[in-house]
Amino acid sequence: MGGDRAPDEIVAGACRAAAELGVEVLLVGDPERIGDAGGLAVLAASEVIEMHDDPAAAVRTKRDSSLVRAAEVVRDGHAGAMVSAGNTGAAMVSALLRMGRIKGVNRPAIATPIPVPGSTPTVVLDAGANAECSPAWLVQFAQMGSAFARQRFGIPEPRVGLLSIGEEPSKGTSLVKETHQLLAAGAAGPEVCFVGNVEGRDVMSDAVDVVVTDGFTGNVVLKTIEGSMRFAMRAVLGALDSDEATKAAGEVLLPALLPLVTELDADTYGGAMLLGVKGVCVISHGSSSARAIVNAIRVARDAIDADLVGRLAASTGSAVEA
Amino acid sequence: MGGDRAPDEIVAGACRAAAELGVEVLLVGDPERIGDAGGLAVLAASEVIEMHDDPAAAVRTKRDSSLVRAAEVVRDGHAGAMVSAGNTGAAMVSALLRMGRIKGVNRPAIATPIPVPGSTPTVVLDAGANAECSPAWLVQFAQMGSAFARQRFGIPEPRVGLLSIGEEPSKGTSLVKETHQLLAAGAAGPEVCFVGNVEGRDVMSDAVDVVVTDGFTGNVVLKTIEGSMRFAMRAVLGALDSDEATKAAGEVLLPALLPLVTELDADTYGGAMLLGVKGVCVISHGSSSARAIVNAIRVARDAIDADLVGRLAASTGSAVEA
Repeated sequence: MGGDRAPDEIVAGACRAAAELGVEVLLVGDPERIGDAGGLAVLAASEVIEMHDDPAAAVRTKRDSSLVRAAEVVRDGHAGAMVSAGNTGAAMVSALLRMGRIKGVNRPAIATPIPVPGSTPTVVLDAGANAECSPAWLVQFAQMGSAFARQRFGIPEPRVGLLSIGEEPSKGTSLVKETHQLLAAGAAGPEVCFVGNVEGRDVMSDAVDVVVTDGFTGNVVLKTIEGSMRFAMRAVLGALDSDEATKAAGEVLLPALLPLVTELDADTYGGAMLLGVKGVCVISHGSSSARAIVNAIRVARDAIDADLVGRLAASTGSAVEA
Repeated sequence: MGGDRAPDEIVAGACRAAAELGVEVLLVGDPERIGDAGGLAVLAASEVIEMHDDPAAAVRTKRDSSLVRAAEVVRDGHAGAMVSAGNTGAAMVSALLRMGRIKGVNRPAIATPIPVPGSTPTVVLDAGANAECSPAWLVQFAQMGSAFARQRFGIPEPRVGLLSIGEEPSKGTSLVKETHQLLAAGAAGPEVCFVGNVEGRDVMSDAVDVVVTDGFTGNVVLKTIEGSMRFAMRAVLGALDSDEATKAAGEVLLPALLPLVTELDADTYGGAMLLGVKGVCVISHGSSSARAIVNAIRVARDAIDADLVGRLAASTGSAVEA
């Protein structure tokens, strides 16, 4: 029920996913507002957590909201994953409170893939779940991010970088310096290939596969990239549109530019994943189209099939409770 | 003597600035490596702080380096400003230790203008001088950033935003939340027009004129924008180059794209400014061309003419010591 284009685009995407991917999709929300569910099952939920609601308060008070109910059906084993395009914070809090943390995981983190055309995406985590972090949490993010990049993008040995303001271990905040020491000393274990500090300019490059940072910095990085790309696209399209000659040239160029636009489009990537909870939780962006929802459901299906939660538990040296 | 293209491009830029702007330029460095100084005066300095040198250690041990000597001539009143394309940290430390802080300023900050085509640039500070900050320092950055945006870009009432991960005052780290409270309560005084929290996507927009943040986050933002823009440019140029038809279209488009490239080029903006020291210190980027140096010298000249240091002292409620 959440998100800018709910429920129509969400329902349309769910129907397409059921048909194209052959997965069973359960819609959670207000049956009246959903309307024609295209044959999908609907679990009624009378409340909606709005985009502007305070996440923690909303999850506490709106117990019959679609977000909370969706997390509960995963907890109860009636669904393998939840997918939401609603309030990100509330999706996270619902998943955390209803599914619970994987044993031994300090804090779940949001992992967001950043497109790198010509290469696999770079996974940035934490992208906003925890504004303030400790070095031990960041070490776990390195473990979970590695396991996720392996599962999601098939990278056999993901290169893990620590986001800082210089390559030298002496650069950055005390959080970064302490985390660097831990990772360099192998605190994340042999499965994590730590390549040292990386900088903001490396995120959209193929220099690194996983970028570990606190949720404040990670969220600022994502939104900065979003703003820069929006700006660049608008500037290029503006230049194409300046006169008759450039318009004609633009028509020739569009087919060459289109794959790039598609590759950069958040819809292509199916959104972010909350890592560290006892269930699969995919968070698609608020303006998700039906296509974004199909991709988000595909990502969720793949995570279930590959036992992502079990892999995350193993990566942090813990076992998932029954 | 510092920077990737020193001394040739630096000397060429200095000569052009002297001719075009009618300012007196003093070169500081190794006379032999400088060679033909084009008639400019040269102050001999036997050492060079390299790009990879540790800033604090280098300033302490290389007392006859061009960076340290340049800061000294400003301190001693023989020059009105220093301009460097060398090691940013070392330029900052030299200026701080040799010129000293403006009385009452807690910490100097690096202010970097980010181009916003169609509008005045957005000033981001701190762009890397202080990895960890206190709320009181950020309040001063708001004051100094306002005074700088007024002087440098002629914005009568610069809108000052605090970088966070949501508009709500409750979002962000404890540093951000405490700073928000102070700024919202008017702690920066009537000269600062605080517009609340802003996000990464607002930096390259005309939504705000000054973005206040700690030096870690600020540096990550700058490098993320740099990486995104480099990536976008390369992608567009790659599309233009894909076959004969797009190459022809590209030739039509280049004149329309060129003003954009110029406007985005760091060389156009003359680099960053260290605010809070008792002198003008312009830090141009390491790969500065002669054109970048001309612009950096113009920025320095304007700052002297407009008494930027006096304005900064007034903005923080203090007076510059004689």
